[in-house]
Amino acid sequence: MTIYPTAPELVVDRWFNTTQPLTLSALRGRVVLLHAFQMLCPGCVAHGTPQAEKAHRVFRGNDFQVIGLHTVFEHHQAMTPVALEAFIHEYKLTFPIAVDRPSETDPMPHTMRAYGFQGTPSAVILGRDGRNRHRSFGAEDDMVLGARIAAALAEPADQS
Amino acid sequence: MTIYPTAPELVVDRWFNTTQPLTLSALRGRVVLLHAFQMLCPGCVAHGTPQAEKAHRVFRGNDFQVIGLHTVFEHHQAMTPVALEAFIHEYKLTFPIAVDRPSETDPMPHTMRAYGFQGTPSAVILGRDGRNRHRSFGAEDDMVLGARIAAALAEPADQS
Amino acid sequence: MTIYPTAPELVVDRWFNTTQPLTLSALRGRVVLLHAFQMLCPGCVAHGTPQAEKAHRVFRGNDFQVIGLHTVFEHHQAMTPVALEAFIHEYKLTFPIAVDRPSETDPMPHTMRAYGFQGTPSAVILGRDGRNRHRSFGAEDDMVLGARIAAALAEPADQS
Amino acid sequence: MTIYPTAPELVVDRWFNTTQPLTLSALRGRVVLLHAFQMLCPGCVAHGTPQAEKAHRVFRGNDFQVIGLHTVFEHHQAMTPVALEAFIHEYKLTFPIAVDRPSETDPMPHTMRAYGFQGTPSAVILGRDGRNRHRSFGAEDDMVLGARIAAALAEPADQS
Repeated sequence: MTIYPTAPELVVDRWFNTTQPLTLSALRGRVVLLHAFQMLCPGCVAHGTPQAEKAHRVFRGNDFQVIGLHTVFEHHQAMTPVALEAFIHEYKLTFPIAVDRPSETDPMPHTMRAYGFQGTPSAVILGRDGRNRHRSFGAEDDMVLGARIAAALAEPADQS
Repeated sequence: MTIYPTAPELVVDRWFNTTQPLTLSALRGRVVLLHAFQMLCPGCVAHGTPQAEKAHRVFRGNDFQVIGLHTVFEHHQAMTPVALEAFIHEYKLTFPIAVDRPSETDPMPHTMRAYGFQGTPSAVILGRDGRNRHRSFGAEDDMVLGARIAAALAEPADQS
Repeated sequence: MTIYPTAPELVVDRWFNTTQPLTLSALRGRVVLLHAFQMLCPGCVAHGTPQAEKAHRVFRGNDFQVIGLHTVFEHHQAMTPVALEAFIHEYKLTFPIAVDRPSETDPMPHTMRAYGFQGTPSAVILGRDGRNRHRSFGAEDDMVLGARIAAALAEPADQS
Repeated sequence: MTIYPTAPELVVDRWFNTTQPLTLSALRGRVVLLHAFQMLCPGCVAHGTPQAEKAHRVFRGNDFQVIGLHTVFEHHQAMTPVALEAFIHEYKLTFPIAVDRPSETDPMPHTMRAYGFQGTPSAVILGRDGRNRHRSFGAEDDMVLGARIAAALAEPADQS
């Protein structure tokens, strides 16, 4: 029996592309792809963020939610929420995107610190039970990611 | 309840990349990706055949088998088994590849006719019960294909 | 005899990747590729700006100069010089880049207005005489751009 | 003063995409891109041969000629003229393509041997004087190739 680690709740300052804030606890029963990115991270812009948008479209209508998390840990003056809003508009992103809450003492924002991400892009797949099924740092192949999401969707909800 | 159509057995003249001929009946209990291609089909060479090779590597070790099927329905003098052997060598393909048996009266070879493929690349995913779960003609997205294979793998074997 | 139009001088607030400000008049005798972009323009980030960087490397050592011009005409709060500096760092751009001077009354900055660019990416090739040889809006093929620069380099300097 | 080496004349069995055989001597005064390839060479199919087709289209109408040369030095049974004809049809190649004459004693065909090509894809740019300006083996960047062709076109014809 595998006990997957529990995913920490999101600590968020602001949301884009959703009228209601999202919480992981309210998403229990659904599979979640959490995509941590920065708008000035070339690997995110070229690969990770378009891939998250694709997953949002491919699995739409299933028990599945993509959440973008803007985890600014460098160039804080450049990657403001105003700049992120322009980025979302220009890149035509449609999935919900949260601004990870900055820390006053730590260059890394709160949620990023709680998850222990090493950088961007990072991704976590949460099962219907809200626990981490898989995490990755850097580019992940589309075929592999598609298979991981489908496998998590196929898993029955926790009965406990 | 969905009754999926039964997949016809392969009618094959020759195999590459396997010491033993494969049959769909012997693969019952495993998921099969059948990739129909021609070595001079640009869409196969650029996308479909490398994608089949990738699926072979990504899902290796699971209850999964990729089968290539060389379905020559045009340029018969050009796409001989000798030419196919050179193609497989040059493109470093490692999954089992069968030569679909030519017909004496039909430009389309036997297995291609039995499956009713419209052209190449065509693909079929067979469930553990040997029945068609999905078929496609032309390019299919990697994320979508990865999800379809994972979903077929997640399905329990037929109990009947 | 073709009379090419004269290229207006750059009106610039700030430079990156050069210790000395550049002027078109001081570059007389050299071929110049002027690449107008915005850091949040997807077509610039994916194609135009890496292409300008490639031209900078390919033609280095010839009588040739690439100049980037950050022509912010939308999302002014997002594409500040501080944000541009982070963008240049993250995308490892090495050619000189100028910030086009904003207007107080016009969303379009001064140099962009003087050149009449329709949007980004835009590019102009200036001959050794400082006159426009070619201008483009949107993606230009690498082979075509390489040929245009080489043709401009091959042209003898104005004798007048 | 640079003395460029003379390019050997083509030794050809058969032509495609031209009603008249071409000779380098008859093309004196024009720039020639000679693209040596094999239809089962992955680097040719993915990059070199589409690049030659692009050069054919980009520089059409100039004093410029692309010549494809099918230099079969391996898998001779697979890459027959019949197979090449199907390849040209399927890949929609429109530039003139010659079959390099096979040798009875050498795996390498006559023209390939005379030029000393190491493999495929190989390319040579001939100046208006019929002499080698540049040769390459493997992938060459589009921007660089475009510049080399333009530079050769800019060179005045030999006055001798």
